[in-house]
Amino acid sequence: MIRVDRGRLRRFDAEKLLPEAEGYWQEYIGGKSPYLPFLGWLSAEGSAWGALPAIKEKAREIRERADAFVVVGIGGSNHASRAVIEAIGAKGIEIVWMGTTLSAHEIARQLKGLEGKSVYIGVIAKNFETLEPGSHYRLLRKWMEQRYDSAEMARRVILTGTPGSRLNEIADENGCLFLPFPEPIGGRYSLFSPVALMPIAAAGLDVDAYIAGASSVERALRSGENQDALLFACWRNACLRAGFDIEVLTSFEPRLKNFSLWWRQLFGETEGKDGKGIFPAFMNCSEDLHSMGQYMQEGSRRVIETFLHVDDPEASVPVPADPGFGDRFDYLDQWDFADINHAAEQATLTAHEAGDIPCSVVTVDRLNERAFGELFYFFTAAVSVSARLLGVNPFDQNGVEAYKKSMFAALGKP
Amino acid sequence: MIRVDRGRLRRFDAEKLLPEAEGYWQEYIGGKSPYLPFLGWLSAEGSAWGALPAIKEKAREIRERADAFVVVGIGGSNHASRAVIEAIGAKGIEIVWMGTTLSAHEIARQLKGLEGKSVYIGVIAKNFETLEPGSHYRLLRKWMEQRYDSAEMARRVILTGTPGSRLNEIADENGCLFLPFPEPIGGRYSLFSPVALMPIAAAGLDVDAYIAGASSVERALRSGENQDALLFACWRNACLRAGFDIEVLTSFEPRLKNFSLWWRQLFGETEGKDGKGIFPAFMNCSEDLHSMGQYMQEGSRRVIETFLHVDDPEASVPVPADPGFGDRFDYLDQWDFADINHAAEQATLTAHEAGDIPCSVVTVDRLNERAFGELFYFFTAAVSVSARLLGVNPFDQNGVEAYKKSMFAALGKP
Repeated sequence: MIRVDRGRLRRFDAEKLLPEAEGYWQEYIGGKSPYLPFLGWLSAEGSAWGALPAIKEKAREIRERADAFVVVGIGGSNHASRAVIEAIGAKGIEIVWMGTTLSAHEIARQLKGLEGKSVYIGVIAKNFETLEPGSHYRLLRKWMEQRYDSAEMARRVILTGTPGSRLNEIADENGCLFLPFPEPIGGRYSLFSPVALMPIAAAGLDVDAYIAGASSVERALRSGENQDALLFACWRNACLRAGFDIEVLTSFEPRLKNFSLWWRQLFGETEGKDGKGIFPAFMNCSEDLHSMGQYMQEGSRRVIETFLHVDDPEASVPVPADPGFGDRFDYLDQWDFADINHAAEQATLTAHEAGDIPCSVVTVDRLNERAFGELFYFFTAAVSVSARLLGVNPFDQNGVEAYKKSMFAALGKP
Repeated sequence: MIRVDRGRLRRFDAEKLLPEAEGYWQEYIGGKSPYLPFLGWLSAEGSAWGALPAIKEKAREIRERADAFVVVGIGGSNHASRAVIEAIGAKGIEIVWMGTTLSAHEIARQLKGLEGKSVYIGVIAKNFETLEPGSHYRLLRKWMEQRYDSAEMARRVILTGTPGSRLNEIADENGCLFLPFPEPIGGRYSLFSPVALMPIAAAGLDVDAYIAGASSVERALRSGENQDALLFACWRNACLRAGFDIEVLTSFEPRLKNFSLWWRQLFGETEGKDGKGIFPAFMNCSEDLHSMGQYMQEGSRRVIETFLHVDDPEASVPVPADPGFGDRFDYLDQWDFADINHAAEQATLTAHEAGDIPCSVVTVDRLNERAFGELFYFFTAAVSVSARLLGVNPFDQNGVEAYKKSMFAALGKP
């Protein structure tokens, strides 16, 4: 089960904010919030919107028939599933992430990589106006039409969007499976909806354990048994009020790189508005200790740091002895990299706290489906309350429209 | 040739700092700087330290005989070469980056990937005390000893470090090629030294064009013909004095991801000291517009942004027409992704400037070896002066020792 170091989270009298945080949470779960139309994510199990059987059935078909499952989605439409699949690994199938770029160079490279493979695609586009999924769906559709007849096209294309939308009609017109991107669940909150469940299931991972992990955090929060997510929200806001306005998520497992991207969107997009918000960044260690380590230790004192600690390294690589070679690393004999990595993490925490960085530690047992369910629910509940403590709307993102307006004008969109 | 938008760089009266910046630069090139022992990087051609013929010869051998060249290095020991090779692509050989993690899970995965391949390794360790290269050299050495005899080991291992160091002795004792990591060139300044030249040459890329690109920027700066790098340094400091203390490097080519990591180290490690420094971060667009776009547009107004623009997309992917399908993206007919990507970039610049983000634009013709030489020299010259304007030492990084002390104690290092 996910856990935090509560002692660290009490810095700057953070617990004094807890009653206010609890108030927001009670408002959410009591159904009395002004944000009620945006709270579909509150129920992890309910987020699947009844589509779980259809998802599992399609996943079985994909895994039998496809070499590659192409997920066409950007931002909230792929961050969660990509984080889970990168960390645990797809089993016996390649998952390809498209619609994440407009670079012709990168798109050409990705298309080339699909040549000769049996391909299924899942297009995720809530409002079906976003440029990347729309253009990539068309590109891949025409690419596939050269390879598959219309019956195969119907099987191989899965469309996920708002029920009743034009994308839903297209699915019906072409006989494709349509999955709901439910209206009351925003992009970055779509963790347990078909948006994330379909790719995770297609990768051969355990979606039930994933949802169960989230539900366990949800239950403990709803019952008041464990309010760590709320305390985490209070800690961040207490730090901000004390002048710390950058947060770095630090992990020592490189396979958490996409998790860091997910986390950055969740906090940046939820809080970054009205001229406010902690600026979110991340470090992938030990590598980034050799680039951002200097700044963290001695740069401007406005950074707080959240360590994402994983108990079980799930691997063992001992440092081999090499007596007589004289490389001056004999002190590492008997050490396993798994333990060296934990020692480096602990030393970093110690050094950064000595360097006056307010630190928190969030721990999971190991990087499996259940843990990602826990992590996603924990941080999502936290940010939904953290934004309220900051005084901003946790569920909108009007700022992302600004560049689109100018871009659509340049492209001649009617 | 690399170029900037000088109009944008004059914001906040930045050019008033130019005489001071020029003074620091003249001090460097005039040989009268107190930092003289750290200025080996000033001469791009001189940075090779006479090793270029040996590097080219070994690169030919590697390319004839190896499936994979493993670069063992971390931070300044791999960021530059990795940026170049990721962006341009290794030709007919796989370049593997090891020594970048202590995660047993990741190391086991990397070792598995080497099975069955003909492997050469290049170990880069300036002082040969850093844990990652030291431990990985040992791990790979023992792994290779099970596959190659001692004559082959001698050919297949290249060691790069301080001349006269223990690593140099080891090279001599084992008959390996030793390449100099010159004392007067710090890790993040080692761009045109053997540290970066050996991997770039092994990847089949044009090291002469790479050095020539740097030399052209160097010559123009030395002669005073083009001082854009100094003006860029002034702009950053003028913005900082105006209260902007986070800088985001934004690019629209995903293959610049490792360049962003290089850039982040360069600025973070050079300036982040004495409680000062602009916090460096980056966006990989268009993807990150869908995560950090909201914060950029409407979050806390303390961010400045540098766009790294590439004129030539070096690829063409037209959006295929699909009349009658009714996806509502017909406005994209006739458009090439290469142009859509540029339109998105221009729209982002427009929107962010409208949102009161001070922006600068650095442009290169295309992502080839020459351009990376230009970019590296430009930003390195800039940071060496920017740090002086900030009042910190551009060439040390004492903060990185703090966590090491605690870690070495835990590991029982004598």
